Amino acid sequence: MNKKLFSRFLSFFLIFGFFPWTAFSASSEVFYNTSLQLIIILSLAKIGHALIGKIKLPGMIGEICAGILLGNLSLLGISFPSLSSIQSSPILPLLSEFGVVFLLFLVGLESNLTQLVKAGRDSFITATLGVVIPMALGAGLAHFIWSAPLPKSLLIGATFAATSVGITAKLLSDAKVLSKPSSQIILGAAVIDDVLGLIKLSLISGIISTGSLEPLSLLIIIAKTIGFFFTAFIIGHKILPHYFNLHTTKSDTSLLVALSVIAVLVFSNLAILAGLAPIIGSFTAGLLLDDLKFKSNHLKVHTIEEMCKPLTDFFLPIFFVLIGLQINLITLVSIKNVGLILILLVFSIFGKAVSAIFCNQKNIDRMGIGFGMIPRGEVGLIFATFGLHHNILTSEVYSILVFVVLLTTVIGPLLLKTRLKNF
Amino acid sequence: MNKKLFSRFLSFFLIFGFFPWTAFSASSEVFYNTSLQLIIILSLAKIGHALIGKIKLPGMIGEICAGILLGNLSLLGISFPSLSSIQSSPILPLLSEFGVVFLLFLVGLESNLTQLVKAGRDSFITATLGVVIPMALGAGLAHFIWSAPLPKSLLIGATFAATSVGITAKLLSDAKVLSKPSSQIILGAAVIDDVLGLIKLSLISGIISTGSLEPLSLLIIIAKTIGFFFTAFIIGHKILPHYFNLHTTKSDTSLLVALSVIAVLVFSNLAILAGLAPIIGSFTAGLLLDDLKFKSNHLKVHTIEEMCKPLTDFFLPIFFVLIGLQINLITLVSIKNVGLILILLVFSIFGKAVSAIFCNQKNIDRMGIGFGMIPRGEVGLIFATFGLHHNILTSEVYSILVFVVLLTTVIGPLLLKTRLKNF
Repeated sequence: MNKKLFSRFLSFFLIFGFFPWTAFSASSEVFYNTSLQLIIILSLAKIGHALIGKIKLPGMIGEICAGILLGNLSLLGISFPSLSSIQSSPILPLLSEFGVVFLLFLVGLESNLTQLVKAGRDSFITATLGVVIPMALGAGLAHFIWSAPLPKSLLIGATFAATSVGITAKLLSDAKVLSKPSSQIILGAAVIDDVLGLIKLSLISGIISTGSLEPLSLLIIIAKTIGFFFTAFIIGHKILPHYFNLHTTKSDTSLLVALSVIAVLVFSNLAILAGLAPIIGSFTAGLLLDDLKFKSNHLKVHTIEEMCKPLTDFFLPIFFVLIGLQINLITLVSIKNVGLILILLVFSIFGKAVSAIFCNQKNIDRMGIGFGMIPRGEVGLIFATFGLHHNILTSEVYSILVFVVLLTTVIGPLLLKTRLKNF
Repeated sequence: MNKKLFSRFLSFFLIFGFFPWTAFSASSEVFYNTSLQLIIILSLAKIGHALIGKIKLPGMIGEICAGILLGNLSLLGISFPSLSSIQSSPILPLLSEFGVVFLLFLVGLESNLTQLVKAGRDSFITATLGVVIPMALGAGLAHFIWSAPLPKSLLIGATFAATSVGITAKLLSDAKVLSKPSSQIILGAAVIDDVLGLIKLSLISGIISTGSLEPLSLLIIIAKTIGFFFTAFIIGHKILPHYFNLHTTKSDTSLLVALSVIAVLVFSNLAILAGLAPIIGSFTAGLLLDDLKFKSNHLKVHTIEEMCKPLTDFFLPIFFVLIGLQINLITLVSIKNVGLILILLVFSIFGKAVSAIFCNQKNIDRMGIGFGMIPRGEVGLIFATFGLHHNILTSEVYSILVFVVLLTTVIGPLLLKTRLKNF
């Protein structure tokens, strides 16, 4: 994006965002206001996305930074009506939740069970070490620094144990090394990591709702989790394919989109009923549907993925901007917190960087694999946001965690890039 | 869809829709409830869509019928918590408005200014006659039957003067006669009709807001309308292409989806500011963007249309189901109203059927062209719904109008089919 066009884009946004248009009469007020909020959020998100892309970083970092900017405009003495309406809107969090639910559906579609099995022993070792070490370091550190009780320590540990498969996969794909053994191990490990992460999240949320880690309630949580996966597997393998295969010869994409949305929402609600997070449901729906492909004479070959991606493209920037919106920069500006961020960052990088040391395949780059696991991305943010919404994390701790997650997501790709030549 | 699978689909829906799941604890209540409402709406809509497709009718009729069924379940003595929450939800009308705004954006993308010019004299005559005759018949009849004041008569006339380009175009495309001269005239006329319809709507909404047809306020309305189209044209031709062309060589579909959504919402809000309906804005955005095409290495060739269609696929069924939901079957069950519906139907069919009599191209089927203009579809419904929401139409009159629009949308394709061999 050149400077002239960028300044045009910015002026366009400024006119549309800051003009007090609500003073005019509107035919449909809710539509008008929500549209205005979405224009501001999407414009800022994509400006951030484009700017961060200039320095070759993942777009989501730019979108979160756009949210941080928006949420901390008061530091610059700026305030306008649309901003406060964004912060108090009951509709935007819902749309943002659709975004993350559809994202995990897409991640599920990208992952598949066969790949999971193929990736084998090395992926499993890397994923396990990559969860255990940061989890232990994070939880231990949290206990040491904040004297945090068990749920809080576990949640902070879990935040640092996450891995964002999307960011790493995109980098490997762009560098055309996806088929190399090291990349395969990373992908496999990232998939296992995602599943471990979701199981962690359901266990922690269970512990939070029952208050402590009692053996019986832990058993109930595990039973519910297994029950969900079992039900999901039955529905996913016995029922869903029939509805989707019905329409393989038809050209009606609207039916396929509706079926995908219904599947995502049904699985999300099933997960909620089992006490799990809705994203676990949508991820499972994606995992089970990933082999179904459809033909359409209108748009040639389509996969569910291609048809659902625009929905994610619409909703997901709202999620990232709202995450940034909740970061309070003021709380970070203290020597103590800057020190904390640096310590947590070093621990986070170390915990993942060593995760591949026990891999024994030939022609692999163990350090490169470890670096590939560093970005915590959206999975880490989901844990932190979960903690904030359930009053486990204070706004200050949340801001610190999100900042560290952001930094790992920036540093991970930078470190991985230096090792790609060994892949 | 065979019977066994259909019954499975239905049982699946019944379990998910009617089970009192709100009794369980939910991690995110708004998400859970809205998901449940969307599951019910999308499932019923697509069952209706599939069933009506069996008898070769446009899917939207099935989706509206699903809404009628849902809205009149109380006649069968059925009621459940999710149903009343659907009827009182503040979020569903917003999502449904996104649906119709995106639909008109897609219609705008399908139409284009060049085609509009090419279609020429015959299209213009057909469109004009096809608006003037049903408008006069409809408004006259409304004045005669209901002693309706001017805005009401005009609105009823406008409802019957609409043409749904989507339904006719889909039928002609399926029959592979799209390139025949008669089809070209229909398409051109339908496009002109859409523009006339939107101008009518803006004029009527202006008359409604000022109370009467005063020359000065009419001038202001026309000035505002021209002002909007002028601003839109400048933005659409001078500014928008830069933002979109910036990304033609990039593979990031998320940016293109966001840009399209921003364009749609900005134009919709501009239209609202000019006193016009948001759909006029999104239609104009589509009309101005229709020649831009994008390449993406991930999904091969993409047009904005292909990327925005899934959004419409998600939101639009909500619009159709909510329309059906507002039809009160009880009010229709009287000899007087059945008679009214039949009279209005005959007038509606006649008004469009004769619209092509003055076409003078060779090798065309004048009656076929007229039949192609009969379906009022979503454009007619937009007028009727506008009237209901602005308290110009009573629930009874609205139900009658929607019923007649539905019947034209069913009968149009049936009549057109008998003439396709002459095309």
